[in-house]
Amino acid sequence: MRREETSLAPQRELAFQRLKKVSESGLVSVFDFKRNPQNIFTAHEMITLIDGSLATKFTVQFNLFGGSMICLGSERHSSVLEGVDSLRTVGCFALTELGFGNNAMEMQTTAHYDEQAKEFVIHSPTTISQKYWITNGALHANYAVVFAQLYMPIKGTKEYKKEGIHTFVVRLRNDDGSLRKGVFIEDMGEKLALNGVDNAKIAFNQVRTPREAILNRYSDVDENGVFTSTIPKMRERFLRVADRLLSGRLCIAGLCMGGTKIVSCTGLRYAKARLVLGPDGKSTSPILEFQLFQNAVYPLIARTICLHIAFNIIKELYSKDIFTTDMEIVRFVCFIKPLITWNLKEISTTLVERMGGQGYLAINRVGEGIGLGHSGITAEGDNSVLMQKVTKELLTDLQTQKTKLPKLTQCPKRDIPNLEDVTKIDTILNLLKWREISKIQELGNKTTQGMQAGKSIYEIWTRENNDLVQEVAIAYSDRKVFEFCIHDIQTNAKNTIQKPLLIALSLYGTHLLTKDLGWFLMTGSINAKAAQNLVSRHKELVKEFHIYALDLVNAYGVPEHSLTAPVAHDYVEFNELPWTGGKTKPKL
Amino acid sequence: MRREETSLAPQRELAFQRLKKVSESGLVSVFDFKRNPQNIFTAHEMITLIDGSLATKFTVQFNLFGGSMICLGSERHSSVLEGVDSLRTVGCFALTELGFGNNAMEMQTTAHYDEQAKEFVIHSPTTISQKYWITNGALHANYAVVFAQLYMPIKGTKEYKKEGIHTFVVRLRNDDGSLRKGVFIEDMGEKLALNGVDNAKIAFNQVRTPREAILNRYSDVDENGVFTSTIPKMRERFLRVADRLLSGRLCIAGLCMGGTKIVSCTGLRYAKARLVLGPDGKSTSPILEFQLFQNAVYPLIARTICLHIAFNIIKELYSKDIFTTDMEIVRFVCFIKPLITWNLKEISTTLVERMGGQGYLAINRVGEGIGLGHSGITAEGDNSVLMQKVTKELLTDLQTQKTKLPKLTQCPKRDIPNLEDVTKIDTILNLLKWREISKIQELGNKTTQGMQAGKSIYEIWTRENNDLVQEVAIAYSDRKVFEFCIHDIQTNAKNTIQKPLLIALSLYGTHLLTKDLGWFLMTGSINAKAAQNLVSRHKELVKEFHIYALDLVNAYGVPEHSLTAPVAHDYVEFNELPWTGGKTKPKL
Repeated sequence: MRREETSLAPQRELAFQRLKKVSESGLVSVFDFKRNPQNIFTAHEMITLIDGSLATKFTVQFNLFGGSMICLGSERHSSVLEGVDSLRTVGCFALTELGFGNNAMEMQTTAHYDEQAKEFVIHSPTTISQKYWITNGALHANYAVVFAQLYMPIKGTKEYKKEGIHTFVVRLRNDDGSLRKGVFIEDMGEKLALNGVDNAKIAFNQVRTPREAILNRYSDVDENGVFTSTIPKMRERFLRVADRLLSGRLCIAGLCMGGTKIVSCTGLRYAKARLVLGPDGKSTSPILEFQLFQNAVYPLIARTICLHIAFNIIKELYSKDIFTTDMEIVRFVCFIKPLITWNLKEISTTLVERMGGQGYLAINRVGEGIGLGHSGITAEGDNSVLMQKVTKELLTDLQTQKTKLPKLTQCPKRDIPNLEDVTKIDTILNLLKWREISKIQELGNKTTQGMQAGKSIYEIWTRENNDLVQEVAIAYSDRKVFEFCIHDIQTNAKNTIQKPLLIALSLYGTHLLTKDLGWFLMTGSINAKAAQNLVSRHKELVKEFHIYALDLVNAYGVPEHSLTAPVAHDYVEFNELPWTGGKTKPKL
Repeated sequence: MRREETSLAPQRELAFQRLKKVSESGLVSVFDFKRNPQNIFTAHEMITLIDGSLATKFTVQFNLFGGSMICLGSERHSSVLEGVDSLRTVGCFALTELGFGNNAMEMQTTAHYDEQAKEFVIHSPTTISQKYWITNGALHANYAVVFAQLYMPIKGTKEYKKEGIHTFVVRLRNDDGSLRKGVFIEDMGEKLALNGVDNAKIAFNQVRTPREAILNRYSDVDENGVFTSTIPKMRERFLRVADRLLSGRLCIAGLCMGGTKIVSCTGLRYAKARLVLGPDGKSTSPILEFQLFQNAVYPLIARTICLHIAFNIIKELYSKDIFTTDMEIVRFVCFIKPLITWNLKEISTTLVERMGGQGYLAINRVGEGIGLGHSGITAEGDNSVLMQKVTKELLTDLQTQKTKLPKLTQCPKRDIPNLEDVTKIDTILNLLKWREISKIQELGNKTTQGMQAGKSIYEIWTRENNDLVQEVAIAYSDRKVFEFCIHDIQTNAKNTIQKPLLIALSLYGTHLLTKDLGWFLMTGSINAKAAQNLVSRHKELVKEFHIYALDLVNAYGVPEHSLTAPVAHDYVEFNELPWTGGKTKPKL
């Protein structure tokens, strides 16, 4: 219970002690990456039900740090790796630099190889090259996976050759907890949320680490100081090691899905219990009965359910091959993290507002979702940057015919603009496909025209059509999620649950269409009458969803003991006065 | 600088010490309510530049507590009132009860008059009747203005007669800081933000306070125990004392406008300094140059500028008569608080995301705006409840012909749907008027139809058409703000500043239209071609605004010393390493 004042130190200690409990439970192991990656993803979701700070420390320890060693290291790193499960080794992941959050390829941390000593010398040459935001760094980590530009000596000269970005396991702290010589660490201080996480600025002043420290799955330096790599291009070398961020995106998505469950479960239970102005002028009506609450919240709950289904499918696809280079799966991973983290941010923001004061109180944990959402939006690749990547990869695959545009089952040019009801699931899907195709074609045309006019892709995409670049990715993702859900609900959902899930799917669909109603009308994809019917039907679906809403969020299966918010239970009892005990509770 | 760990106690002490500094400065006095109310409103805005917690404590002390005594009390309360400026008296405002945040009329705290002792007995009979969220209550207040249901003894019986809600000055703490007998206070603990504010739960167990404690502007009890009131109806008695919330709404709006200035100034300066991927592949381009940043942020800055102009006009209108019963001014006050607080929430949320990690760091104070916005959204009346009030009062005044529907200067039924350019300021205004008229008529029709079908107003407004009730208020508010700005910019802005302000106004206008594009198209208010032109013009306006954006936010005049965020200045210098001092700053 977070009722007492909380300064940073005890919050961090608490998160660390909880991490120890997770470690002791034996329920999850870094070696799951090889035998059962799904267990790792699920663990993120479950752990967030307890504590977002714990989950953040966990994802760095098990996925970013431990997972990197499993996926990029070899036998010779096993002594460090074997300490991960037990926390004998606590690790961090030193990729981001102050000046290169957006352009990691240009990072400035260097690793010069010293032939004599057979050591790498890790160094931060500039202020903006310091590692920034490094979780576990300020207090608990004794090791780091450090990303640095490798420089190999050119034999017989004093010159060095740049070999691109590689990863090194670097010891940060001695056994007694003191910093190793040349390691500079500063606590980043207070944040918007997740203050149990000990984020650090880390810099290296000529820190030496043995030759074996390089994670050598793709590149290595042998005993004679000879550098070899299975990847010829420097740029590719970075991209391959940065692939570690892919599984990280699923971890962040899981973490934020866990947060979404806590937040929506708490919010809806409170809305059912909180009595406000009723038809009799007394405080007799739960706010859950208010259309204002329902319209604001239910479409987001429906979206959560659909994102959850899609997320499960994507996790399964990815888990079949964690070294996948299937760009379709890469796209799925790159869009599901943005969609889930944005959803958490929006649902928390909405619930805090609709819950009023109780949403604002820390102990109820709903406001926490805003901060958790924001941390997820930035982590493992900024959402908008990832969405731009989705568009880029999609257009590349379309050009090389590795993928195709979606196929319409109705022809919107002929049929759909004349329909007066566009709210059938199949019609919604066709409209989403139609939007996707149109946006892709529009971006394609604008890119071609721009290039013909002598503009660079950079100028066309970031200066002139960035909105369209984002819209393509969103149109594609919305369609894929919707398609995943249709298939999954029709094939897997049993009879009793199929009906509410279909209502959720329809509501998600009408939400997507109404959000972009201007575009559908402006382009003649639907007509005015269809739009009016869509708006009415959307309103009806909110009412239909109301019947199942509370049952659906309870069906997330959040364990009662992890719903620690007083308002998720009996908030009147929680506030009981010494002289009024039990007298006048509102009926729950 | 909030770099160190912060627990609740030192944050609160800091906010209190700062309140003392404000008090010692002599720049603002509770007596300004009589001689210069504008000074109080301006003080809120300025003080928030320093600290939102301080501003919250300030607004309770000077407006809710002090202002209530000025406006509702009389000579006999002068000894308490005279302590307000110097903080000899620190007060709180005990209106909200746990169970009646939404329906204060039904509050349960009682004040029974004891004829014998000539005292009121203040009592909290139930758990849900405890006063909740009471700022200054947990630590610093020695007095409270308490709202309670007054019960007067019926002479010659043991019965009491209910006289409705009245306000009483009740002493909470003794000179030594200990609680008075029967006063129960519990600290509410940590919140989403503003943790320097000592919010309390306050309950009364038969607490006695002298007969003179009743604030007697409208009602009084004389020496013989005779109750008199200038307001016959009980309901009206509450509404008159609750009028105090009107000035409070302007205070909260000022407070959140101050927050908006800090947040946008910090965000734009950082965006100018932060270098990310440029056309050369190096980190050479400020994020301010990215269309993604501009599209997300500039329309909100333009909206801020327009809300600011409208706010100044509304403050001036209200300040002419702080006891105003002019319902038009009441409506203005009731919509400007929602618009400004929602704007702060949205701009902070957007900037945190677009700034990435630096937005998430507490020291940069941008994330603070999210919490400040949420506190403003709930304070002095939930935004949606206020917007519903705006609609209700507007429809009432229309029915009784105290006000008229806005007059179109073009006839949209004939002209506007055929226009291909709807982005001229006069056309935008006509479209906003048209939307307002249509929504009012739609709600009027639905209300009439519903009532003819035997439904209650409650059912029609809260269960079936709550979205429309909100939309009417928003349509009305948007139109009024736009109209205020046209008039103000055309009359008052000097030549050099007029051009950027007109761009801001146009951008605000196209933002309003594009946000509701589906409605304008669906209703045939504009055609598809006009919509396409609108979308392009909106994009162009963002580019035109870019030229002035940074100058405009700097022109808010936020003093440099209150821009405490490192990213508002030289964030590289702030992060300097011992061995890299000054070497590689990005150019600012």
